[in-house]
Amino acid sequence: MSRTVALLITLLALSLDSAADARMRNVILIIGDGFDDQHVTMGRNYLAGMSGKLKVDDLPFRASVQVETVTPSGAPSYVADSANTATSLATGAVTSMGRIATDIGDRDVTTIGERAIAAGFKVGLVTTSSLTDATPASFLTHVSARSCEGPEEVLGSTYYGIPQPACLADARDNEGPGSIIEQLVSSGASILLGGGQKFIEQRTIDNETVAAMAARYGFQVVTSVEELASASSEQPLIGVFSEETLAVRWQGTDGRTAEATETGWLHYLSDYLGDTKEPEVMDCEPNPAYGDTPSLAIMTETALEHLSTDNDQGFFLMIESASIDKQSHKRDPCGSIGEIEQLEEALHHAQNFAQQHPDTLIIVTADHAQAAQILPEPTLYSGYPIPIYSPGLTARINTPEGGVMRINYATNNGFSEEHTGANVPLFANEIGAQQLRPFLRQREVHDAMSAFLMGATEPPLAKNTSPASR
Amino acid sequence: MSRTVALLITLLALSLDSAADARMRNVILIIGDGFDDQHVTMGRNYLAGMSGKLKVDDLPFRASVQVETVTPSGAPSYVADSANTATSLATGAVTSMGRIATDIGDRDVTTIGERAIAAGFKVGLVTTSSLTDATPASFLTHVSARSCEGPEEVLGSTYYGIPQPACLADARDNEGPGSIIEQLVSSGASILLGGGQKFIEQRTIDNETVAAMAARYGFQVVTSVEELASASSEQPLIGVFSEETLAVRWQGTDGRTAEATETGWLHYLSDYLGDTKEPEVMDCEPNPAYGDTPSLAIMTETALEHLSTDNDQGFFLMIESASIDKQSHKRDPCGSIGEIEQLEEALHHAQNFAQQHPDTLIIVTADHAQAAQILPEPTLYSGYPIPIYSPGLTARINTPEGGVMRINYATNNGFSEEHTGANVPLFANEIGAQQLRPFLRQREVHDAMSAFLMGATEPPLAKNTSPASR
Repeated sequence: MSRTVALLITLLALSLDSAADARMRNVILIIGDGFDDQHVTMGRNYLAGMSGKLKVDDLPFRASVQVETVTPSGAPSYVADSANTATSLATGAVTSMGRIATDIGDRDVTTIGERAIAAGFKVGLVTTSSLTDATPASFLTHVSARSCEGPEEVLGSTYYGIPQPACLADARDNEGPGSIIEQLVSSGASILLGGGQKFIEQRTIDNETVAAMAARYGFQVVTSVEELASASSEQPLIGVFSEETLAVRWQGTDGRTAEATETGWLHYLSDYLGDTKEPEVMDCEPNPAYGDTPSLAIMTETALEHLSTDNDQGFFLMIESASIDKQSHKRDPCGSIGEIEQLEEALHHAQNFAQQHPDTLIIVTADHAQAAQILPEPTLYSGYPIPIYSPGLTARINTPEGGVMRINYATNNGFSEEHTGANVPLFANEIGAQQLRPFLRQREVHDAMSAFLMGATEPPLAKNTSPASR
Repeated sequence: MSRTVALLITLLALSLDSAADARMRNVILIIGDGFDDQHVTMGRNYLAGMSGKLKVDDLPFRASVQVETVTPSGAPSYVADSANTATSLATGAVTSMGRIATDIGDRDVTTIGERAIAAGFKVGLVTTSSLTDATPASFLTHVSARSCEGPEEVLGSTYYGIPQPACLADARDNEGPGSIIEQLVSSGASILLGGGQKFIEQRTIDNETVAAMAARYGFQVVTSVEELASASSEQPLIGVFSEETLAVRWQGTDGRTAEATETGWLHYLSDYLGDTKEPEVMDCEPNPAYGDTPSLAIMTETALEHLSTDNDQGFFLMIESASIDKQSHKRDPCGSIGEIEQLEEALHHAQNFAQQHPDTLIIVTADHAQAAQILPEPTLYSGYPIPIYSPGLTARINTPEGGVMRINYATNNGFSEEHTGANVPLFANEIGAQQLRPFLRQREVHDAMSAFLMGATEPPLAKNTSPASR
């Protein structure tokens, strides 16, 4: 064969290859749960330094996303949970807290995951929470309450002794589609990676475990990093690597989280009298419980490999860094920061993939804002001869660049912080810059992803639950 | 004259006119003090509704701005004040809290306002604070401490009995350039509108009032809306409409601000026992003290008229909505929201102007984040049989669309809330979209404005005080 002919054949092969690539359309949606601007900045200050940049900061497009929530009767509500926000991202509908892809009339709202599967795309969900948690659940299942994670919980459960909502109409016992985990394994998803062993071990109404049910639906079921590494990319795969939420990578010194300022006895007379002792400065250190938990990066890499095998149409992949929020509830800034690092690593893999597959839309966003605030160290009022301190809980963290970053949690007096209501950031690659506007309602993020992947479609059934005109 | 000739003359006149316009370059920088994403969302929810849009939301470009602050010894510091942030916006330098266009070595750093005046542009400052407050001051003056507002304060002052920093080296008594107000009236600015009568009534070392000094420098001095309306656009103008900060437009019902949750006596035994009584819901209502205070809109309109009269080169105009921050310090969400409305009205005038003068860069940004958080109403944990409430102060506001928005202030136990450390939003018109990137350090906002107005120039003297490489 002459060199010219060889060159022509090579060029032909390359052009066929790029034509195949051009046909493949992919959406990678990375959700940082609770990844609001306070947490983005906390992550930047720690991981990149005050004057540094996160990977998300280098993405070419940035927007703000207004979160919309309604009360069960449809009135506007200014703070969300991960269920109603994931429902907006997954379906384009606005609903009430705790609902998984159902509207306030308890009607199912079709998800982008379901429509993608129906249209021949592969679908994957990857999360550091349980696969049955609100965020992943909302992309492929429909129940009236986020607590209906397994065949047991769908009939009713308790949490620290407090009864949680059941979803009796959804239960297979009542000829419903079943709990979240049952709906997930029968959804037609190609890959599901996260936590949730507790739920795949439960027995269904057919007296088989959910794991056995998953196998019956064609899934390989894996529960360790080693099994994950040796699983086939040519068969659906479910991997659950802990009972529920995966362990986080980092913790504060000796497991410390935010703490109260100690006040002397004169404080009983007046807030402005007596000595105070603020919590000691701490470091972020590896969390011993993390052990051989698979990283979000490894799960992302595996999912991208899996979803792109024998697939010339494309895929929808949702990747969640769940514990930015979960550790913020627990007043554990180092836990949140380690989880932001995991999000950044997942983004790195997504960007590498998009470089090879140019029709890949990458969006990184948060679902709702969260409690943590970066406060002055020391207080702005340190010149005043009275003790000024947080009425909540404080963590003071040494940063690698030699600063001390003070994180405050003071949304309530309880065992778990509140979400907050600020609009949340969205970051996207060049394709996102073409598809999105700088200000979006959360439901419009769904609409843009959906239009990119499958073209414009009818609005979902429940869009009319939105309290305002579109 | 034939119709063809008349048409040609008209076209010629239009093209000459647009050529004149093309030569005129303007920058309008609108600073919402403390206008972070919690406050933007608070404003949106109240003024436009949960699913509505503010004017800033419709601007075609949006970015996040990382605020950089250093300690007096140059170490990274994660929360700013309005002095060091305005210094970054005005000069491109990073400095320590409290400094007005001076670096941590107390060297003056040239401001965009000064360079604009030197290059033949007109310069204006408009604010709802005192003209001598940190934000406006940083665009045209240099002192070592923000407290050095007048000829008296530059020698030392107290605030609620607490000594404030003096700026002895800056005082004219010591052959320095004088206090902030003295430097402002000798700066060559064309128009200065805001509060600060207290400071123009003080006497300088020459035993003249600052008002007399201003007149000597060619200023018309006005102190009421009527005088403002009849002032000439052809002579420099200083308008001061209150002693210090201007009164805000709105307040809570009967002047109420955020309040503590009342707890019953069983609370002395445990936080989780006993009854609690949360603050009553309130409305936002007109603040009787606002009276005939000129609106930010009127001051903006006057400044734009003034700056564009007999000016074919262009101008730099800084407009500050100061009391988003000041009322957040005071836990007064209605005060902040009324001030956000004022910012929106000022933006409306800026946009109208830019429509007539296409080479006008409009940037809206915040200087630093602030204390307020939008919290769930009721708490996320209302299902639990224990009292869950904020350890800080709470305001529950009826919104015009029929919701209740809960605002929490809990950064400290003191008389004034803390700033927070999140990156802040930036909004810009089409010209901004060409000049800016979606992630910026605050100093880079200065660099972009400066390059647009005057072309690239040498970095300011003190850029080397930035703790990280540019």
